[in-house]
Amino acid sequence: MANASQKKRLMEAIETITRNVEARGEPLFHGGEQPLPQKREVIAIVRGLQEVIYPGYFGDQALYREYLHAHLADQLYALSKKLEAEIRKAVNAVCRRPGGEVVGPVAQDPAEVVVRFFARLPEVMELIAGDVVAAYEGDPAATCLEEVVLAYPGVKAVFTYRLAHLLHELGVPLIPRIMTEFAHNETGIDIHPGAKIGREFFIDHGTGVVIGETAVIGDRVKLYQGVTLGALSFPRDERGKLMRGTKRHPTLEDDVVVYAGATILGGDTVVGRGSVIGGNVWLTTSVPPYSKVTLSRDQLAYEITPR
Amino acid sequence: MANASQKKRLMEAIETITRNVEARGEPLFHGGEQPLPQKREVIAIVRGLQEVIYPGYFGDQALYREYLHAHLADQLYALSKKLEAEIRKAVNAVCRRPGGEVVGPVAQDPAEVVVRFFARLPEVMELIAGDVVAAYEGDPAATCLEEVVLAYPGVKAVFTYRLAHLLHELGVPLIPRIMTEFAHNETGIDIHPGAKIGREFFIDHGTGVVIGETAVIGDRVKLYQGVTLGALSFPRDERGKLMRGTKRHPTLEDDVVVYAGATILGGDTVVGRGSVIGGNVWLTTSVPPYSKVTLSRDQLAYEITPR
Amino acid sequence: MANASQKKRLMEAIETITRNVEARGEPLFHGGEQPLPQKREVIAIVRGLQEVIYPGYFGDQALYREYLHAHLADQLYALSKKLEAEIRKAVNAVCRRPGGEVVGPVAQDPAEVVVRFFARLPEVMELIAGDVVAAYEGDPAATCLEEVVLAYPGVKAVFTYRLAHLLHELGVPLIPRIMTEFAHNETGIDIHPGAKIGREFFIDHGTGVVIGETAVIGDRVKLYQGVTLGALSFPRDERGKLMRGTKRHPTLEDDVVVYAGATILGGDTVVGRGSVIGGNVWLTTSVPPYSKVTLSRDQLAYEITPR
Amino acid sequence: MANASQKKRLMEAIETITRNVEARGEPLFHGGEQPLPQKREVIAIVRGLQEVIYPGYFGDQALYREYLHAHLADQLYALSKKLEAEIRKAVNAVCRRPGGEVVGPVAQDPAEVVVRFFARLPEVMELIAGDVVAAYEGDPAATCLEEVVLAYPGVKAVFTYRLAHLLHELGVPLIPRIMTEFAHNETGIDIHPGAKIGREFFIDHGTGVVIGETAVIGDRVKLYQGVTLGALSFPRDERGKLMRGTKRHPTLEDDVVVYAGATILGGDTVVGRGSVIGGNVWLTTSVPPYSKVTLSRDQLAYEITPR
Amino acid sequence: MANASQKKRLMEAIETITRNVEARGEPLFHGGEQPLPQKREVIAIVRGLQEVIYPGYFGDQALYREYLHAHLADQLYALSKKLEAEIRKAVNAVCRRPGGEVVGPVAQDPAEVVVRFFARLPEVMELIAGDVVAAYEGDPAATCLEEVVLAYPGVKAVFTYRLAHLLHELGVPLIPRIMTEFAHNETGIDIHPGAKIGREFFIDHGTGVVIGETAVIGDRVKLYQGVTLGALSFPRDERGKLMRGTKRHPTLEDDVVVYAGATILGGDTVVGRGSVIGGNVWLTTSVPPYSKVTLSRDQLAYEITPR
Amino acid sequence: MANASQKKRLMEAIETITRNVEARGEPLFHGGEQPLPQKREVIAIVRGLQEVIYPGYFGDQALYREYLHAHLADQLYALSKKLEAEIRKAVNAVCRRPGGEVVGPVAQDPAEVVVRFFARLPEVMELIAGDVVAAYEGDPAATCLEEVVLAYPGVKAVFTYRLAHLLHELGVPLIPRIMTEFAHNETGIDIHPGAKIGREFFIDHGTGVVIGETAVIGDRVKLYQGVTLGALSFPRDERGKLMRGTKRHPTLEDDVVVYAGATILGGDTVVGRGSVIGGNVWLTTSVPPYSKVTLSRDQLAYEITPR
Repeated sequence: MANASQKKRLMEAIETITRNVEARGEPLFHGGEQPLPQKREVIAIVRGLQEVIYPGYFGDQALYREYLHAHLADQLYALSKKLEAEIRKAVNAVCRRPGGEVVGPVAQDPAEVVVRFFARLPEVMELIAGDVVAAYEGDPAATCLEEVVLAYPGVKAVFTYRLAHLLHELGVPLIPRIMTEFAHNETGIDIHPGAKIGREFFIDHGTGVVIGETAVIGDRVKLYQGVTLGALSFPRDERGKLMRGTKRHPTLEDDVVVYAGATILGGDTVVGRGSVIGGNVWLTTSVPPYSKVTLSRDQLAYEITPR
Repeated sequence: MANASQKKRLMEAIETITRNVEARGEPLFHGGEQPLPQKREVIAIVRGLQEVIYPGYFGDQALYREYLHAHLADQLYALSKKLEAEIRKAVNAVCRRPGGEVVGPVAQDPAEVVVRFFARLPEVMELIAGDVVAAYEGDPAATCLEEVVLAYPGVKAVFTYRLAHLLHELGVPLIPRIMTEFAHNETGIDIHPGAKIGREFFIDHGTGVVIGETAVIGDRVKLYQGVTLGALSFPRDERGKLMRGTKRHPTLEDDVVVYAGATILGGDTVVGRGSVIGGNVWLTTSVPPYSKVTLSRDQLAYEITPR
Repeated sequence: MANASQKKRLMEAIETITRNVEARGEPLFHGGEQPLPQKREVIAIVRGLQEVIYPGYFGDQALYREYLHAHLADQLYALSKKLEAEIRKAVNAVCRRPGGEVVGPVAQDPAEVVVRFFARLPEVMELIAGDVVAAYEGDPAATCLEEVVLAYPGVKAVFTYRLAHLLHELGVPLIPRIMTEFAHNETGIDIHPGAKIGREFFIDHGTGVVIGETAVIGDRVKLYQGVTLGALSFPRDERGKLMRGTKRHPTLEDDVVVYAGATILGGDTVVGRGSVIGGNVWLTTSVPPYSKVTLSRDQLAYEITPR
Repeated sequence: MANASQKKRLMEAIETITRNVEARGEPLFHGGEQPLPQKREVIAIVRGLQEVIYPGYFGDQALYREYLHAHLADQLYALSKKLEAEIRKAVNAVCRRPGGEVVGPVAQDPAEVVVRFFARLPEVMELIAGDVVAAYEGDPAATCLEEVVLAYPGVKAVFTYRLAHLLHELGVPLIPRIMTEFAHNETGIDIHPGAKIGREFFIDHGTGVVIGETAVIGDRVKLYQGVTLGALSFPRDERGKLMRGTKRHPTLEDDVVVYAGATILGGDTVVGRGSVIGGNVWLTTSVPPYSKVTLSRDQLAYEITPR
Repeated sequence: MANASQKKRLMEAIETITRNVEARGEPLFHGGEQPLPQKREVIAIVRGLQEVIYPGYFGDQALYREYLHAHLADQLYALSKKLEAEIRKAVNAVCRRPGGEVVGPVAQDPAEVVVRFFARLPEVMELIAGDVVAAYEGDPAATCLEEVVLAYPGVKAVFTYRLAHLLHELGVPLIPRIMTEFAHNETGIDIHPGAKIGREFFIDHGTGVVIGETAVIGDRVKLYQGVTLGALSFPRDERGKLMRGTKRHPTLEDDVVVYAGATILGGDTVVGRGSVIGGNVWLTTSVPPYSKVTLSRDQLAYEITPR
Repeated sequence: MANASQKKRLMEAIETITRNVEARGEPLFHGGEQPLPQKREVIAIVRGLQEVIYPGYFGDQALYREYLHAHLADQLYALSKKLEAEIRKAVNAVCRRPGGEVVGPVAQDPAEVVVRFFARLPEVMELIAGDVVAAYEGDPAATCLEEVVLAYPGVKAVFTYRLAHLLHELGVPLIPRIMTEFAHNETGIDIHPGAKIGREFFIDHGTGVVIGETAVIGDRVKLYQGVTLGALSFPRDERGKLMRGTKRHPTLEDDVVVYAGATILGGDTVVGRGSVIGGNVWLTTSVPPYSKVTLSRDQLAYEITPR
């Protein structure tokens, strides 16, 4: 138990902390009448969509085909309400930048965004179905599609990215990043919701993969763990501030494979279609279609010495 | 609130989504009378075994030695029931492959599998005890065994792998991968349950480690973060399909150490006993026992320039 | 359902397991009258401090500025009680080493530690505020401070490290490592609570970053994913045991940037202020201030061949 | 903390208790491979049916009329599965009587019982709708139907009785009593599921109401708190055992009103239609239709004295 | 498992149920864009106010007097938000009566109601403090005030009534009845929120007590279990409908005691101050001050016969 | 949303409330370093003992007889720890009376009390087993012992009383009353933990039963709903205060039956063995053994008039 002097000092410390917070504004205090989107709710929405899009996989109850219709419709309706509530928070949020500039609120009707999101969900579901097959086809250790859906982190991360990217395209702030950061947390795969990714995309193992905001990826591309599609440098404006929004990340055309640990950087870097980038390669320039880029012999020379 | 037109469009979108799902089969719909193994339940089993195998570490109640017997027996019995239920789902599951091929159900008696699992648990617990000591001995930052058990991700990942591997050997589908993917999620360490790993295995830090399905690892091996034990290439059959089941991942003999970021590839690659593989090394061929493989001087040459 | 023979064998297996555990001591059994610090409680404390330090970000209820004072004081008081309870467990713990040596209990008054922790929290909050701004300034994809706080893993990992480091400095065992391992789990960033880190520290993406126990980092340093600040070798004492406590990890002076995948090793390695270490660089020696270390041209030579 | 002697005595006490339980059979031990119906599950089913039967009242989400169809169908399907699981436990249960006699299992197909239950649910819902209107019409303090559904204990108890009675008629053991005891717990109204009750039944306030197993109640009957419809005596068989199954409780014809605290006893007692039984009346014989039974003047004579 | 015919019949039954609900309006369907007040939330508000009004009794953490201020203010602020949300639902609700008449929405500003509620809470707290002392003074079995607050059902019921009555006076629909029905459920004591009750009111044991909407109770009144303060008859209007809103329940002046099971009926019945009404008395007329009303000798005559 | 004036007034109201609480002591503020026993914990202990004492009834997992021993021992050990913690709070509590007198702490060693409680639990379990059989034998509607245990409120109330009475005898304050009030809440049966009750005690239906602190009940007694065993008057001391601790409630000898609604009052009232007290009887004097007390003919005379 604390003695009297300790109590007094604890009280003083708490008083100091609270006074400090009150005296200060950003970045540590976000006030206002309305809460920001809640991470817990956003995760619940992703999980809910997962149950709807992969029916029969995640629920603890078998689904008769006969009841699928009612079940899906009911779940989708409930999710549309949850999503609308979080989008409302996101578009109404007044966010701050150092120096006092604010961004938001965004002139979007949450109900309209939700309608558009659901209207485009069928096409996203097609993409997701293609990703699942690509994962099975791309990994000899996979035994069946069920295993891929239940246990492949790359499938989970790409699934979440596809939902987040759709919201990003619909102009929703904050929520897409919360979604992909949730997937990053779960899988170690960090895909910015702004990246553009084609059909049948597969990331195997995936820990350490980073795909930047302005990366562009074609169809049937396959990445392994530790691949970075990053920026080479950050141009700054005349005031020395980072310029935001320029294309800083590379383009991978169709049918490219990038092995583990490779790093591809730069907004002008284009990996031509059908190319293979070897493990640990560090690539900052474009390569023509159907190239095979591997570490040179010099790099494969090791000193192998008896211990 | 949504207006009438938005409601109508939302309803149409939901209708389209549900119709699409109903019209389609795999990979997005898993139907049938019985649910697949539930990730939540599988995780609960891993956590339950953790409490039993490390008694006194994770529960919020101190354990008198006098009551240990009853406590363990009770927990083990309850876990045997939970495990049997999930194994029943796994062996009964009818899983699909693209093109309509199915795998499963598996001709296994869930109760028998559980008995065999528990009969072999003592030997697995011996292995786990060895892993814990190896972690303490292998990291100068470790202060005691309790810290190792409570806070070392490598210990957690290897623990989970050892349980999953036993189920894998007993012929249980799906659950072993769900288990190791849970550990991957928590630690960034991705060990396929099919890999064979000897005694006193330690992975330090561990994020980004990948150990493939057919890797073979001897006793007293130590890996650091970002190490890949992967496949060099995937042989395909005459129809262009990946051949599954061949040895594609390397063998590490006893007493091998592999430093951070090293990549060792290929089913025929054997790292001889007592060898040390340096950080960031990219190794696709065998090396004899007691080798020390490091980047060559050429690779250690950097351009160091004033900015 | 299990048949009689299976029941009998299951009972025997359970009996064997429990007898084994009872017969054995460390490392798999931690007995005694008092539980170890509970991971669940430690995580709750980190989350509680997150809500207090970033008021208005994580709760599901908007905060009027008028009520901030009461809210913060109430939360801080409750957290002080929770923290005292876990610290009490930690300082009283008797932990073991292989061979029977024990460490602990630690001669600390939990109430006093809590008072000191809260007394120093304002300075830690200043550091955290600086980290948040550094993250915004360091990433052109960041749109506002709210996004940085809600969705940047590096911010979360550094936040948790700063709390853990303070407890580490106050001499609390076990809890700091549980805290940073929680952050490692969530973000893939592994920072030892013993490391010393200056102001405005930013880690982008972050998966795979490892910062060792005796690393020293200056102000305004920026790291990318996959960076290791590690040990070069582990000196052993005359009995062949690892020597614990020596400086084994590098020093980064102010304003250093280290790009993705770079590895910097050794307790004597000092990266001079203002230096830039390029991606995938493997550095084991000191470099003077304002150096730019990149892979040499030899290393940038690839074999680019048509497939 | 317990001292050594206390620990020893506690261990001995626990050992004694467990040995006693093991040595003994009924009534304190119910063994076997399958659990009894679970109260928690049964309550969840009642609450689930409440949400379905009163849509829009209890959920925390407004229901658009457009989505009602999908929502109800989905909920009903899920409830049918839950109900089937509990019915399976109930019909398989082997229950015991003092002396060793057993009852059960019951030869019922749980799936068939569920189908019949749902097939008859529409008629039960009609009865429930009538009960709600009767409550509104019967209480001048009621402001609207919503208040009646949300806050009238009599409505809740009768609702639960109607579901339990249907299961009772379908031959399901144990579950109907668990249901009505749940309602008794919540409302103080104890209706045996075997009682037969007509349309538009209203119990106001209701605490202390008891309606026995063989009571028969007509249409438009109204009871107040503390009314007992009970047995006058329990006939015993030649061995002195209670005879079970005979009509022991009274019959109330249509349009009867019974005021607070009245007691009506006996299987042959018939309260003729349209009769009014006054408060605190003790009635053990039949009364003709349209009777008004009140306490006699003698009983209304009090001694009113100055204190 | 259900066979095909059973599945088909189940589907038909579910279809019938959903169609019936859709076809029908009141009383079983409450539609609209906004949910009704949620019982769960209302209960949480009552419990929250209980923790605030009795600080130190119900929380699992001791309260230092030093932190009481912050704790109470924080809790009260959070409760004010919860309460405002439920009041918003209640005043906006469109409720129905049989025949299609609707009541609501109510022209009340929820924020204003909350302000008024909190402004009057201090006087209600004074009343509650008086009730607690009255309970201690009124029961010789009470050992201390803590026991009275923690374990006396009458104290709980009266506490809840006092909050509900305040909301009732402020014109809030639905919520007051949900509150008192919650207390009725917990204690068996049914107090209508419209009743008017003076200071230092104590109900001992309490099960079966009913206090009607228009009852008026003075100061220092004491009731025992099973007491009814009810209506004698319900006047009907020219259309045969119950007339709502007239005074139908009795008045008890100051210092009245009513023993167990007594029934006092009628809006014109006044029990004069200081009177004692004996157990089981049935009273439908007024009695002057300081009366003692007990069953007459005739009523105390029993037949005592040997069995 | 609240406007500025409303916010200001709300703040003032909250300030007033908190200031009032701070300014005041009892009865509304219980301060100090240690919390009172927590109702939630006490209920968990009762439920835990219920699962142990009726093994196989309440858990959701079937119990093999083979594992009963370990299961019970483990549960009992855990319950002993929970119970010790609550008893520690209870014996340390400093409770207050109006006027400033305090009771407590009580000079009891919590660990010792727990040992004694468990040492006497076997005899209490014998009593409980007898109560269960008595319930079955006493109600012709009972179908088996399982139904009695699962669904008879009287059995639940008496079970809880027996545990509470044992703690009461061991001198534990507060907890016994919290236990029996929990049972009162669930069943409407209010038994003071101080009452003395013999073997094979059965209360049927039970709502409204009150058994006072100093009541004494023999073996094989049976009560119905609404029976009061109460005090006739409360003697006061010379200062006008209630005298606590005198025998105020009646004695029922062996084999007494009391029918619904009967009231028996007074500490000197003895109902001789084998007597039957009829429904609604109001009894304040002793009756000899084997009496049958029913309402006299006068009381059974009603006015039965056509309406």
